[in-house]
Amino acid sequence: MAKSFEGVFAALTTPFAGDEIAVEGFRKNILRCNTTGLAGYVVLGSTGEAVLLGDAESEKLVAAARATSAPEMKVIAGASRESTRLTIEFANRLAELGADAVLVKPPHYYKSLMSPDVIKRYYFEVADKSSVPMLIYNIPQNTGISVEPSTIIELSRHPNIAGVKDSSGVLSNLTDVVPEARPDFRFFLGAGSLFLVGLLLGASGGILAMAAAVPELCVEVQTLFRRGKLAEARKLQLDLAPLNKALTQTLGIPAIKYALDLLGYAGGAPRPPLLPLDETGKAQVRRLLAKLGLLESQAE
Amino acid sequence: MAKSFEGVFAALTTPFAGDEIAVEGFRKNILRCNTTGLAGYVVLGSTGEAVLLGDAESEKLVAAARATSAPEMKVIAGASRESTRLTIEFANRLAELGADAVLVKPPHYYKSLMSPDVIKRYYFEVADKSSVPMLIYNIPQNTGISVEPSTIIELSRHPNIAGVKDSSGVLSNLTDVVPEARPDFRFFLGAGSLFLVGLLLGASGGILAMAAAVPELCVEVQTLFRRGKLAEARKLQLDLAPLNKALTQTLGIPAIKYALDLLGYAGGAPRPPLLPLDETGKAQVRRLLAKLGLLESQAE
Amino acid sequence: MAKSFEGVFAALTTPFAGDEIAVEGFRKNILRCNTTGLAGYVVLGSTGEAVLLGDAESEKLVAAARATSAPEMKVIAGASRESTRLTIEFANRLAELGADAVLVKPPHYYKSLMSPDVIKRYYFEVADKSSVPMLIYNIPQNTGISVEPSTIIELSRHPNIAGVKDSSGVLSNLTDVVPEARPDFRFFLGAGSLFLVGLLLGASGGILAMAAAVPELCVEVQTLFRRGKLAEARKLQLDLAPLNKALTQTLGIPAIKYALDLLGYAGGAPRPPLLPLDETGKAQVRRLLAKLGLLESQAE
Amino acid sequence: MAKSFEGVFAALTTPFAGDEIAVEGFRKNILRCNTTGLAGYVVLGSTGEAVLLGDAESEKLVAAARATSAPEMKVIAGASRESTRLTIEFANRLAELGADAVLVKPPHYYKSLMSPDVIKRYYFEVADKSSVPMLIYNIPQNTGISVEPSTIIELSRHPNIAGVKDSSGVLSNLTDVVPEARPDFRFFLGAGSLFLVGLLLGASGGILAMAAAVPELCVEVQTLFRRGKLAEARKLQLDLAPLNKALTQTLGIPAIKYALDLLGYAGGAPRPPLLPLDETGKAQVRRLLAKLGLLESQAE
Repeated sequence: MAKSFEGVFAALTTPFAGDEIAVEGFRKNILRCNTTGLAGYVVLGSTGEAVLLGDAESEKLVAAARATSAPEMKVIAGASRESTRLTIEFANRLAELGADAVLVKPPHYYKSLMSPDVIKRYYFEVADKSSVPMLIYNIPQNTGISVEPSTIIELSRHPNIAGVKDSSGVLSNLTDVVPEARPDFRFFLGAGSLFLVGLLLGASGGILAMAAAVPELCVEVQTLFRRGKLAEARKLQLDLAPLNKALTQTLGIPAIKYALDLLGYAGGAPRPPLLPLDETGKAQVRRLLAKLGLLESQAE
Repeated sequence: MAKSFEGVFAALTTPFAGDEIAVEGFRKNILRCNTTGLAGYVVLGSTGEAVLLGDAESEKLVAAARATSAPEMKVIAGASRESTRLTIEFANRLAELGADAVLVKPPHYYKSLMSPDVIKRYYFEVADKSSVPMLIYNIPQNTGISVEPSTIIELSRHPNIAGVKDSSGVLSNLTDVVPEARPDFRFFLGAGSLFLVGLLLGASGGILAMAAAVPELCVEVQTLFRRGKLAEARKLQLDLAPLNKALTQTLGIPAIKYALDLLGYAGGAPRPPLLPLDETGKAQVRRLLAKLGLLESQAE
Repeated sequence: MAKSFEGVFAALTTPFAGDEIAVEGFRKNILRCNTTGLAGYVVLGSTGEAVLLGDAESEKLVAAARATSAPEMKVIAGASRESTRLTIEFANRLAELGADAVLVKPPHYYKSLMSPDVIKRYYFEVADKSSVPMLIYNIPQNTGISVEPSTIIELSRHPNIAGVKDSSGVLSNLTDVVPEARPDFRFFLGAGSLFLVGLLLGASGGILAMAAAVPELCVEVQTLFRRGKLAEARKLQLDLAPLNKALTQTLGIPAIKYALDLLGYAGGAPRPPLLPLDETGKAQVRRLLAKLGLLESQAE
Repeated sequence: MAKSFEGVFAALTTPFAGDEIAVEGFRKNILRCNTTGLAGYVVLGSTGEAVLLGDAESEKLVAAARATSAPEMKVIAGASRESTRLTIEFANRLAELGADAVLVKPPHYYKSLMSPDVIKRYYFEVADKSSVPMLIYNIPQNTGISVEPSTIIELSRHPNIAGVKDSSGVLSNLTDVVPEARPDFRFFLGAGSLFLVGLLLGASGGILAMAAAVPELCVEVQTLFRRGKLAEARKLQLDLAPLNKALTQTLGIPAIKYALDLLGYAGGAPRPPLLPLDETGKAQVRRLLAKLGLLESQAE
């Protein structure tokens, strides 16, 4: 995965046209993001409504992402299944379709049986048999299972486990893992509000839902940080905080998609049972984007 | 679903032979249970490792269950998917294969978006389009989402929503729902330790993991209760409590399968990432079965 | 504590007159309850706003309860402090003032340090040094700490630990503890909705907040059960369920006090930061009491 | 509270001699800390075992802290009680004894009644009637109640609410509060692992348990940050992370006190039910201090 496996990755949404996935809209979004300074994409992540898709749909999206991304950009594909065997099969299918790496959540349905030992065995076996590098995906707010720092540190000894995307919002996960993990193990922030401070503490970058809507601004945080312009980086990070919170916590996926619509991307409605954003939520998203100077000023 | 939709249902396990499902073992278990007084079976439930199976495997199991069950026994099939559309498609496929009813968990990955309103719309749409009656499946310990009594009461107005299986262990769910729900709405206990008291408070029966291993004893609790032999019913319920706890909480599915092996059913190992029971767990299961008089006395 | 330590105990409220405790109202409530068939009272429980009182106030209430209760009725006093030493001192002061037993929550502020071993040592030391019998008080919804069945079973070996009040609502605590605890160890339900089924499964009785407002009806559930009138007991328990839920879960202490006002007891407002019941809550309590035939029919 | 209300504050422990508080040890610790660059002290915080102390003991400690602290250093005293009235009385007593400000947790026993509105009224009333400035103390891991950013922002409008100590470890609390709160409202990190990044994002300083044991190193993080030596600040923060975790999460107060013993302060055992550190914990603390160069190298 070499040196370039760092920077800002956008967690892409999945546009729909009626009941079906809208592959053209998906490609359009990627084409527009290709020139924003992103390091790559995550397809079939939580933001991508992966759990609402069938296998054939998922495969089409990975193939389309690979075909549309700039060649030097990484395509990381979500490949989680509850069973070890199905995860491995799916990961290798996505790799054949062009995924550079796979992102894998811990199995989490049988919560009381998911001891750290079971989780470790699962990841080691997937990593052994995956034809591309694997990233651990820690998102306890959705799975109800936390992959603990001590587990991540042990997993980092495996040469095919490239890193972790941590969406927990618990910054001590980073400070626990980074000093103890394999030196070239990547720690990616999944929580947009922690992006700048994560960089300060040694993260390799971020895999951000917000970066699907405002990739330039996310990249700008990183650029300012790398140039030592801390005060400006901090200001931009704080300015982005309310948008990030709305898109990833209070309003979620429907708000990301509405923001995409407003910003000229293919957004649209999520797939049921998820509902489109209501009018109150829409007004809030418009206000937040306007405050960042991304919309004409709002006459409400 | 008429009058006979009550009584004890066994939540069946899925036997495996190496990497593959062992349909013969599955049929053997059903044949032996057919004469135990059970009202029917749940296939593809949590106990059945449904989340670890592929679609084709799932369909084979439902067809086999229908073909093997005594004709007057109900076959209820788990049909949960995160997306509304995939749930409906899967439910109808299983109905064509012979399922008398489907058991459906709430979507639960996007926890922060799963408002009571979203959950209600989901269930109403599935119930509208399912060709067989639907049961709500509340199991917050696995899903991280609770279907609240007020939601269940509203859902009970739908003629194709036949009832609920509540595995939460929260008895007040029953006392909240039963007096307010549609009169012929069924409330099934999923928590074996609450079975007798649930009957006392008006439950229609139980859908019990324990009933896969000791169907006769579960049926006996109900028979004693119906005959007014409360003291004996209570003694049997309390005697069963430690076994139920081991099989469903402390040790889980691997213990149910080991108990099946000991009792002459097709048990075997669960599918990874689940692990077979370790030696300590095995000794505990042997002790518990011996205490109930189901094994030759143990020389340890 | 002999044989009579069983039956229904009312968890008393603390009436206030402006900023001060209203001892006369407190005594009036007890006098009226003395003839309802209750086995005794809990003073300084959660319902009694014990955590909002000063030490001198607490002591006055215990002395008043002893002086006012019928002689054959038990007075149980809450004596919890976070420190072992302060709990022992307080328990013995309350015993001198007439408490027949003390009710003690686990220490719970330093949650991460409260291992089962620490909790056991705490209770054993308090029980060693308390001049009256001690009851364990398990109320995880308020303390954030659960006293596990295995811990309670071990604690039941101590001759000065008379029993447990379990307000968790987790019925398996009862089925786990009763068969394994010291034979004369008392298990009291604290959750009103579980009272009847607890009796069926071997509980010694209930310590109920609802019994401060409707003691006769709580006693009636027990009487019907003891006389084998199961169907009537069940009907009454189910009829009481909505009132119990409002008084102990959705509306809480302010609703108990308003119900007392309506029923001719000394109710009044709780102490800040608790707020008096708002108009919506009041209407709900009136409706619930009217439905039980305890109020003139409501013209709203 | 003027300009100097910022920087690093040590959350002091309470030394004991047998059953009694050891005021001399307490003074000795303060005297030694007076020259370390700290901005002040917190007495009667969580680290100080405040919930295990009687009122008279608490008052002695505040008086001793005021008498012993360097005059320009702030003494902040924990004044939390569950009742509004008792909190106000206690806060004013501590102010008379020399506290410059009081630190107040939300009431948290009646969790289901603690709506944001109730919490706001409580804090506004305490702030109205406290003779010294008040700080909000958010520590959900101990109280089970979170004071939400939106609540803190509203509370910041009160002129006598000086700031917040946030021990939640949730960094987004800071990024939510700081841009919206009163401009001179202070945000203090209570989580040592977030200290540096909090400074980067605009915190006024830290109130740190770790600073009771290693005040110089905590001050050094701040000094390096202020001088723009980011790489060195980051290295020191990461080096401190494992010690901070042991002292505040995995081992807690007993470990802080043992570290104090090793470093020449008055440490000793905590008050029961808290237990002294066991041998495994002691070895871990020695290792962590040795790694920081604070102990002679360990021959284990």
